[in-house]
Amino acid sequence: MLGRINHIAIAVPNLTAAAMPYRNLGAKVSSAQPLPEHGVTAVFVEFDNTRVELLEPLGENSPIAGFLRNNPFGGMHHICYEVADILAARDRAVALGLRVIGDGAPKIGAHGKPVLFLHPKDFSGTLTELEQI
Amino acid sequence: MLGRINHIAIAVPNLTAAAMPYRNLGAKVSSAQPLPEHGVTAVFVEFDNTRVELLEPLGENSPIAGFLRNNPFGGMHHICYEVADILAARDRAVALGLRVIGDGAPKIGAHGKPVLFLHPKDFSGTLTELEQI
Repeated sequence: MLGRINHIAIAVPNLTAAAMPYRNLGAKVSSAQPLPEHGVTAVFVEFDNTRVELLEPLGENSPIAGFLRNNPFGGMHHICYEVADILAARDRAVALGLRVIGDGAPKIGAHGKPVLFLHPKDFSGTLTELEQI
Repeated sequence: MLGRINHIAIAVPNLTAAAMPYRNLGAKVSSAQPLPEHGVTAVFVEFDNTRVELLEPLGENSPIAGFLRNNPFGGMHHICYEVADILAARDRAVALGLRVIGDGAPKIGAHGKPVLFLHPKDFSGTLTELEQI
């Protein structure tokens, strides 16, 4: 059911500083893309097989603000896996006793696709996103 | 210079519990592989494009013991990027002012290839491994 790893997200206090080492080491680094409806500004770092997303808080209610209060220098925030059917994936996760964050209804994520998040306590401390591709 | 993402490592207090959700969600999960020379027991979770490595401490001087003291439920530990030439990669990193952990000499990593680690403070809190492939 879990397909490709779509991206690894890193929450950062400063996108310019965060992007610099990747750019300097020859990775393909996007410009900063404000995503106000998701409370972040994102820089996408493309590798041959998958992507790192650098996320800086944007606005008052950013979903990564709390993480950065606890990790002021930044840190790995979540891993996103692709699934073919987000509702089937959610139902299987729930049947396995895995906790879906929020009300269980998929939201439209930063890539315009349906996503949901599974609780880090069920993944040894790793927040886990599922995205329908 | 940075090539594919070779793996994302997650430090976990208990491999059996950590592997279960991945296996139950249909990922290809290896048996537990003790790597005493690296101070960990590893489970490899294979996805179509890259791999998650679940790492449990092994022995008295495990390199992930301190991380698990700070994060007793586990958490994302590092990202590993493939490079063609580990010495050239190290020299470029050093020339950029990035800090190499240890004495700067590559070590043989858990896959039998030369590796080194770059300091998380230079990657917005993300420990970054380079592995010569």
